Amino acid sequence: MHVVMTYDYGKEVIDEIESLGYSVEIVPESGITEEMDFSRAEVLICYDPFGRMNLSTLTNLKLIMLSSVGVDQVPEKLSSREGLIITNNRGGYSPPMGEWIVMMLLVGVKRAYPLIVQSLNRIWKIDTQVEELTDKQILFLGTGSIAQEAIKRLKGFGAYTIGMNRSGHYVEGFDKVIGKDQVDEYIKNADALVLCLPQTVHTEQFMDSYRLSLMKDDAILINISRGSVLDERALEEELLKGKFRFVALDVTKEEPLNSDSSLWTYDQVLITPHNSWVSEHRNSRRLEVIMKNLKRFTAQGDLINTVDIERGY
Amino acid sequence: MHVVMTYDYGKEVIDEIESLGYSVEIVPESGITEEMDFSRAEVLICYDPFGRMNLSTLTNLKLIMLSSVGVDQVPEKLSSREGLIITNNRGGYSPPMGEWIVMMLLVGVKRAYPLIVQSLNRIWKIDTQVEELTDKQILFLGTGSIAQEAIKRLKGFGAYTIGMNRSGHYVEGFDKVIGKDQVDEYIKNADALVLCLPQTVHTEQFMDSYRLSLMKDDAILINISRGSVLDERALEEELLKGKFRFVALDVTKEEPLNSDSSLWTYDQVLITPHNSWVSEHRNSRRLEVIMKNLKRFTAQGDLINTVDIERGY
Repeated sequence: MHVVMTYDYGKEVIDEIESLGYSVEIVPESGITEEMDFSRAEVLICYDPFGRMNLSTLTNLKLIMLSSVGVDQVPEKLSSREGLIITNNRGGYSPPMGEWIVMMLLVGVKRAYPLIVQSLNRIWKIDTQVEELTDKQILFLGTGSIAQEAIKRLKGFGAYTIGMNRSGHYVEGFDKVIGKDQVDEYIKNADALVLCLPQTVHTEQFMDSYRLSLMKDDAILINISRGSVLDERALEEELLKGKFRFVALDVTKEEPLNSDSSLWTYDQVLITPHNSWVSEHRNSRRLEVIMKNLKRFTAQGDLINTVDIERGY
Repeated sequence: MHVVMTYDYGKEVIDEIESLGYSVEIVPESGITEEMDFSRAEVLICYDPFGRMNLSTLTNLKLIMLSSVGVDQVPEKLSSREGLIITNNRGGYSPPMGEWIVMMLLVGVKRAYPLIVQSLNRIWKIDTQVEELTDKQILFLGTGSIAQEAIKRLKGFGAYTIGMNRSGHYVEGFDKVIGKDQVDEYIKNADALVLCLPQTVHTEQFMDSYRLSLMKDDAILINISRGSVLDERALEEELLKGKFRFVALDVTKEEPLNSDSSLWTYDQVLITPHNSWVSEHRNSRRLEVIMKNLKRFTAQGDLINTVDIERGY
């Protein structure tokens, strides 16, 4: 069984994969060209080489293992192919993203953003509007592994955590879980709203003009999922009215966000460069899933983290 | 029994105090002058009116209830007076300060400070040095209520928490507690060091040049106690060598810190204006202690939060 990997995890890892009966070829994504022939590849371990690749050479491909959680980079030509299995790194980036959410909630309630601006300007002026997470109502749109890693870390803070998923089925750890049909009333009362929705046709602009308008004037809004789940133009309309205590966007519709975007101009908006998934543990966690699935694949066992492309995750 | 309060908690509170048998007088600290006679005052509820006050008029004073945790503002003329009881707001500001510590630990490991500077400059550039609290070693100098509120909130993060107190007696919640004699070896291995020491003669410049030099090059240093526990000149020497991943000073020796202080100039140093204790719950928590002690005082019961001035807390 032949494996093409676009990231080099080093000799030790390659040896281990070969000991499972695979042959291994390393091809960095940046070096891939239309001329290359991938007909030997039965397993492809990659992030997003598809744009540079002659897809019609992938005649023997059986399994794609994506290093990302999102799967929208896979061309339909592949995703629709009968029998081709796709896995992702679901959960692999969730611990740092859970931490990130807690950090941004704290930065928001404790007004660390304006305090940092003060420090950069050498201003010593106490901020009496600093608050606590204690008793705050935090609404997570999405109850998957990212939200779960966040609420695990929020346990000690005395906040009230609400999760929303499509059916409203209970997920361990939340103080309450609601369905999509109840979400508007909970958006009204949330002190903080955290967007952890996967990018699907159902979540496109889920936070639309109406739902943004329902939010409290001093609410905190955090988006760590995908820019598409949020109507950025409607967000700017609310921002212009002075709404929101703090908005932390780690994702935007356009990435990288152009320096002339008006989104950068609001005092209450912090924009970070799709950074929440980064961690010193990222390679080891990703590799753990890869090795587990390579073992199961030769043993013809069920793989973990398989993706239902139609559902979108 | 006559009570002088320097903060007005409102009619309802005054009524409640009077219902306990006290007479109540409100005198804001800013309005106090040398000419005023405080001979009626038997209980003084205040922060720091002492500099403006003719202390020799306090002839009937039995109890001072400080709204601060620190007690160094009380003049020796009062603190040495036989039979005069002093109480403080110990623990009352600890929940927001515990949150503050967790926030600054996250800001440090996740490099939010440089990421915020990037956002202010409209720069979208991923930071691959962002890390997690998972498995980090966090050393708290001091195991009192502030450190305890912090570790309660750190439980979900998978960090290893070590507390240091004078005797090394175990305090619930820490992964390990060490005594002062072991501290140097633990300072060497700490990924983050949190200063929660009270200001006493024993803690003056506890973090001296030698102990600062022991710290890891990429360590995080957080001071939320008092500027005096840290040798700022020695800190600057280390900063000039490029040491520290992040330093968060909520307290400095000189407060307010003058805008021409060199402490403001380091990229890795965030200075906040003694702000960590602020919370929307601060008045209700402080009032809770005051009411409890006023009830106990008329009933001649033991007061809570009494201060041993010689020990300094």
